[in-house]
Amino acid sequence: MKFSSLIETLSAQGHAPLGWGGAPDLDLQGLSQISESLPHTVTYVEGPKYAHYIAETQASVVVIPSDATLQAAVEAQGLGWITAQSPRLLFAHILGLFYQPFPGDPGIHATAIVAPDVVLGEGVAIGAHAVVQGGVTLGDGVCIQANVVIYPQVTVGDRTLLHANCVIHERSQLGSDCVIHSGAVIGAEGFGFVPTGQGWVKMQQSGRVVLDAGVEVGCNSTIDRPALGETRIGANTKIDNLVHIGHGCTIGRNCALAAQVGLAGGVTLGDHVILAGQVGVANQAHIGDGAIASSKSGIHGNVEAGAVVSGYPAIANRLWLKAVAVYNRLPELHKAVKQLERQLERQRDQ
Amino acid sequence: MKFSSLIETLSAQGHAPLGWGGAPDLDLQGLSQISESLPHTVTYVEGPKYAHYIAETQASVVVIPSDATLQAAVEAQGLGWITAQSPRLLFAHILGLFYQPFPGDPGIHATAIVAPDVVLGEGVAIGAHAVVQGGVTLGDGVCIQANVVIYPQVTVGDRTLLHANCVIHERSQLGSDCVIHSGAVIGAEGFGFVPTGQGWVKMQQSGRVVLDAGVEVGCNSTIDRPALGETRIGANTKIDNLVHIGHGCTIGRNCALAAQVGLAGGVTLGDHVILAGQVGVANQAHIGDGAIASSKSGIHGNVEAGAVVSGYPAIANRLWLKAVAVYNRLPELHKAVKQLERQLERQRDQ
Amino acid sequence: MKFSSLIETLSAQGHAPLGWGGAPDLDLQGLSQISESLPHTVTYVEGPKYAHYIAETQASVVVIPSDATLQAAVEAQGLGWITAQSPRLLFAHILGLFYQPFPGDPGIHATAIVAPDVVLGEGVAIGAHAVVQGGVTLGDGVCIQANVVIYPQVTVGDRTLLHANCVIHERSQLGSDCVIHSGAVIGAEGFGFVPTGQGWVKMQQSGRVVLDAGVEVGCNSTIDRPALGETRIGANTKIDNLVHIGHGCTIGRNCALAAQVGLAGGVTLGDHVILAGQVGVANQAHIGDGAIASSKSGIHGNVEAGAVVSGYPAIANRLWLKAVAVYNRLPELHKAVKQLERQLERQRDQ
Repeated sequence: MKFSSLIETLSAQGHAPLGWGGAPDLDLQGLSQISESLPHTVTYVEGPKYAHYIAETQASVVVIPSDATLQAAVEAQGLGWITAQSPRLLFAHILGLFYQPFPGDPGIHATAIVAPDVVLGEGVAIGAHAVVQGGVTLGDGVCIQANVVIYPQVTVGDRTLLHANCVIHERSQLGSDCVIHSGAVIGAEGFGFVPTGQGWVKMQQSGRVVLDAGVEVGCNSTIDRPALGETRIGANTKIDNLVHIGHGCTIGRNCALAAQVGLAGGVTLGDHVILAGQVGVANQAHIGDGAIASSKSGIHGNVEAGAVVSGYPAIANRLWLKAVAVYNRLPELHKAVKQLERQLERQRDQ
Repeated sequence: MKFSSLIETLSAQGHAPLGWGGAPDLDLQGLSQISESLPHTVTYVEGPKYAHYIAETQASVVVIPSDATLQAAVEAQGLGWITAQSPRLLFAHILGLFYQPFPGDPGIHATAIVAPDVVLGEGVAIGAHAVVQGGVTLGDGVCIQANVVIYPQVTVGDRTLLHANCVIHERSQLGSDCVIHSGAVIGAEGFGFVPTGQGWVKMQQSGRVVLDAGVEVGCNSTIDRPALGETRIGANTKIDNLVHIGHGCTIGRNCALAAQVGLAGGVTLGDHVILAGQVGVANQAHIGDGAIASSKSGIHGNVEAGAVVSGYPAIANRLWLKAVAVYNRLPELHKAVKQLERQLERQRDQ
Repeated sequence: MKFSSLIETLSAQGHAPLGWGGAPDLDLQGLSQISESLPHTVTYVEGPKYAHYIAETQASVVVIPSDATLQAAVEAQGLGWITAQSPRLLFAHILGLFYQPFPGDPGIHATAIVAPDVVLGEGVAIGAHAVVQGGVTLGDGVCIQANVVIYPQVTVGDRTLLHANCVIHERSQLGSDCVIHSGAVIGAEGFGFVPTGQGWVKMQQSGRVVLDAGVEVGCNSTIDRPALGETRIGANTKIDNLVHIGHGCTIGRNCALAAQVGLAGGVTLGDHVILAGQVGVANQAHIGDGAIASSKSGIHGNVEAGAVVSGYPAIANRLWLKAVAVYNRLPELHKAVKQLERQLERQRDQ
């Protein structure tokens, strides 16, 4: 692709860059990292920290933030450049033009087992050894990779992609444009047991899991169905690998849950919530819109909208940072108190 | 089902409710949550917190704790009610009468690969594309869902259910009435390596995993076999999703391990132990009967029977709660000590 | 095997024991644990803690550390003994002589789906219902167990073993002598999204995962590919179950990552790094050669080579142990400070 075509394509998509410069006929064949850049590629300099790579880069075009110094450095090397309000988003769009993941093979593989009453949309692809049980409805353009298992009565929305070896349990409803990554398990029984003198008695889990449009669920993550009602994930929420979402949780729109996050039963999240890696949230806790929990936080109570929390049990991030600073000097603090006690004792003895 | 039949069925099962009231001929077709109740259903008011829903409920019968105020409120609405010593257990029993999960299709699917010497009990069901290798014994009523893989020499007890895509490794012994959820891996090699100047040398893991009767293992959880001997899970112990149980652990009866718990090698748990979400237990630690660890606890040493522990490293829950309260005021405490030091300095200077 | 043959075999393999004693014609049929030892076996007494088992053992030969007291105790029972500089390594070698895990069935199972252009080395074994997509290259002696799925353009080195139900995504490069355990997912898309006013926009992940020779990846662990470039695991690094390795991480040689460890994106580890269970490492952090993080540590910044760190946020282990000791007495410390304040107030009032 010529550099000029790239600019035109981005503009036509409504992602017009704020600025660009350089020879319009540069030949672009892909992208590369600035630290290991290759000829005929677009690369990305996130900020001044990476500016030293510009002098040696083999790339032809550099995505940069709107920054006169960086622009001058790139121009001094005779390279093309391109910038936008969000250079990271711009780079994502360019990457999407040059690279798309392997699509599944079209059609239904001869070894797939599809129950006779399954409703198939247009252009559904089902991979080898996949199993689709009774009463399932698959929308247009659904792609099911090899060895996926879909239990009965599941609905899958248009263009949703199920990667290899994931399992979708009975009655789950997956919206359109979702991606379920390999090994994820959606809609299995919630962990519901009643303690009795004779041990744990199972509470049947008759509910279902509902994913709204555009949800992604990472590899080997698990989302459980509740005893009654729904576990629901709001539109465009993204979930990383090895995340556990307990039965009866309700998660809003546009949230991001990083790897190994765990939500106990009945947790509710507002919209735009961000939970960093290994965060845990206890039963029935509520986290308000736009709240952020830093990695490994343990949340028991409720978190207000817009709050940033850290630690275990989680507290306001600002307070936590100060408490951590003192924690790391606790041995000194302890000594100081002991010394004060001795001084006062000496005073009394005088 | 008529309300009167429900009462009779519960009584016949030995789960006699302590009391009930209302029209015996109410027509009941299922259950619903009190917050979104539906006509012709049984619903559940756990306590006064949910009492305000009673005035608006569309349900016909309400399970309540033994509480005169709640009973009066329900009767005032002309609704049926039912109570028992454990209303939660009562609700679980009623739910089990109206709902059971999808059973596997009966028989052995044409695409399942079953080694010629596999011993099959009565009424075994094996799903599509499941693989059962040599020397395996399956008890009566065993149900193996699609794409399950069973390695050689495994024994599976009567009525045990293996959900889609789980893997049972060589020599594992699963008791009767167990449930292995989707993606769980039982009996894989423990993480045994000996450090040497040339790197890690594998310690072969020749042992096996044994699950006693009634054990449940959650989705994508892993239970490893040891170098020698057994990793053993006691009867009726329930394990949630994404739990790791290291090689050579011994877990007692009726324990509950919540999601993302991790036990290192050689850990021993007594009976009735409860580990909340994301708890970690270090090598060779012992946790006594009936002990409870709250979420995210990190346990290094031994925990006495009946203890309740929290924190990292875990300490008595009562002490931890007090320590947390001070931790959250550490910046103030630090300032107070600095001020005391200044005051004493000033005294000395006078 | 006669005891004398065992000694000869170990010597021939270059793992010469430092010493041994007892009847050369003892008949050895396997190994057993010292706590539950069996006749005709080799057992292992790691140190004085287990010495009391010697008087009752039914084993024929005991592996011991070089220790005159233990040697005398074993000889007093008329047992054979054997020792080496690393008795644990010696025991691992003996175990490997008596036990090897089940190999896969040889050949390509009739139900495996192998794309026509797959390049197959000598002696490749592919299990039932495995799926190997286009452009894949499998080295000599590769063993692929049942229900494994390999996406296009993957390379698998000689003698590498893929256990049941694992998934290898597009373009991944697995070295020789690797082991991928059941349910692991290698090379899936990294968690890359750009925040915008319209929600998260996917950053395509066009990179790949590279495992060098001798890497092991535990059950249900996940290693993601990056937007550009590689996620790389160095030779002979061992990874336990349920570990998450984010996109763009670079891990050195001979590292060990215990269960449920999580590395965010772009983390770099040197060689010989050990991360204990449930450790988390934040974006872009670097951990130097030979560093050790104890269980549940949360690492944000960089860790120097050879450091031992603990806690969250992680600090030097020695400091952490002291801080923990004070933490557990924080309620007392708080009282002491309050009392000092009262004393000084009283002084002022006088």
